[in-house]
Amino acid sequence: MNVVRTRAELYSQLGSLRNAGRSLGLVPTMGALHAGHVSLVDASAAACNATVVTIFVNPTQFAPHEDFAKYPRTLERDLELLAGHGCSLVFAPQPSEIYRPGHATYVEMGGPALPLEGKIRPGHFRGVATVVLKLFELVRPDVAFFGQKDYQQCLVIRRLAADFDLPIDVRVCPIVREPDGLAMSSRNAYLSADERRRALVLSRSLQKAAKLANQGERRAAEILSSMREVFATEPEVAVEYIVLADPDSLAEVEQLTGPTVALVAARVGSTRLIDNEILLASTRA
Amino acid sequence: MNVVRTRAELYSQLGSLRNAGRSLGLVPTMGALHAGHVSLVDASAAACNATVVTIFVNPTQFAPHEDFAKYPRTLERDLELLAGHGCSLVFAPQPSEIYRPGHATYVEMGGPALPLEGKIRPGHFRGVATVVLKLFELVRPDVAFFGQKDYQQCLVIRRLAADFDLPIDVRVCPIVREPDGLAMSSRNAYLSADERRRALVLSRSLQKAAKLANQGERRAAEILSSMREVFATEPEVAVEYIVLADPDSLAEVEQLTGPTVALVAARVGSTRLIDNEILLASTRA
Repeated sequence: MNVVRTRAELYSQLGSLRNAGRSLGLVPTMGALHAGHVSLVDASAAACNATVVTIFVNPTQFAPHEDFAKYPRTLERDLELLAGHGCSLVFAPQPSEIYRPGHATYVEMGGPALPLEGKIRPGHFRGVATVVLKLFELVRPDVAFFGQKDYQQCLVIRRLAADFDLPIDVRVCPIVREPDGLAMSSRNAYLSADERRRALVLSRSLQKAAKLANQGERRAAEILSSMREVFATEPEVAVEYIVLADPDSLAEVEQLTGPTVALVAARVGSTRLIDNEILLASTRA
Repeated sequence: MNVVRTRAELYSQLGSLRNAGRSLGLVPTMGALHAGHVSLVDASAAACNATVVTIFVNPTQFAPHEDFAKYPRTLERDLELLAGHGCSLVFAPQPSEIYRPGHATYVEMGGPALPLEGKIRPGHFRGVATVVLKLFELVRPDVAFFGQKDYQQCLVIRRLAADFDLPIDVRVCPIVREPDGLAMSSRNAYLSADERRRALVLSRSLQKAAKLANQGERRAAEILSSMREVFATEPEVAVEYIVLADPDSLAEVEQLTGPTVALVAARVGSTRLIDNEILLASTRA
């Protein structure tokens, strides 16, 4: 497993990985890897002949007041975690290697980038879409793997690939959870023991929603009300949104007429967490 | 010379053009071809193993009050003009083939896209950069050819390629002029005989600037003053800008300390024309 820091080294290494007839998978990450990331690498290794993992904490997707500076950077541990999982090449550049002097070009998206995270974190998806496009261009993979934990981000990346005609198959892999249900996230490392316990309210609210939907409840208002009741058991957790939405458009629904995504975002102490679940997934055509 | 209208046909045809070891050139146009476009095709045919010409009047780079509807569409004549010039494939899609339902993603650029045309035509370079990125992704050429007539556009495309790490060599070819000096432009077709004569004031002002610079004048104010005097001989031509700028940054200069681009834009009747010339080009390092 080679680790490269510059675009020149990346291009040089890619030359041999991209030999004719071989498929190349890309797993873009911000490092601080956990079992969720590893599942993406495993998926890529199973589907492609070679896998590139990028580790880059992308400054343009953080607002000035957000956690860019304190975001965990654990490269040595990340490399240990990747060992034995079929990763061929790690690209771990510095910001100055990605955003060079005079950089003036960004991806702007409406549609799926506008609601929810787009409203709460203005500019976030602009930074995400810009860096993902750049990583797509630098690596030119055949397939790219993203985790469903960042559900709206997955829609944004799919829209990016479709709208810019990128010949890349964007695959979304299932959320990986801790045994007690907490969705794996690099930001879980910020949680105190007490906050870690409280954070379970996100996945519990989604389990409740799934249970109600599976029992036949189709009224969004009823399900949302039950989800809010779950959150009410942890009053120190500050809800940012609880929504039931169309899984493609993210338009909020009043009735569940087919697969519906439940999305939640909340602050636990100073840590912002998100989670989601597809309700009635089995009804998907 | 194959002519295709859909992305599916394009991909199918590109398969054989892109064989290993062959280089692919792209000449993006809006049709209404003239000798300027043909010079780009000739440059591509000389440098690459195969050349794709795209003909697409891109709606997103026109403001609502601009000439999208009346822009000349002359496909049959365009194809006749291309015959014998080494064009392998023409891609002439409808707007609905390029902008599909749900399209929500655009390229936004600061830097070179901000002054001059960027100020006068807000959104223009957003549309240009978006469609050029899409055409780059659809065709995936090794080299792309643009005409210096659209000087600022060339800077925008180069910035696009650099900032998004596109592995495409962007080449800028010299302006092709009518015998009397008028820069070739599809929009020249809009000019009446009288306007056609008046339109010469653009190239005459640039010739005057070049002459002064070659004679040793280094004060931008003096050169600009002489250019304005040339325009004053045609009071019915409405100047939009006359500037002397750094050829890379487009920052206006006070002194000519090396190669400097003179850029002019004016309305002749209802037709908007632009032209430019690099002064002191031979001093370029």
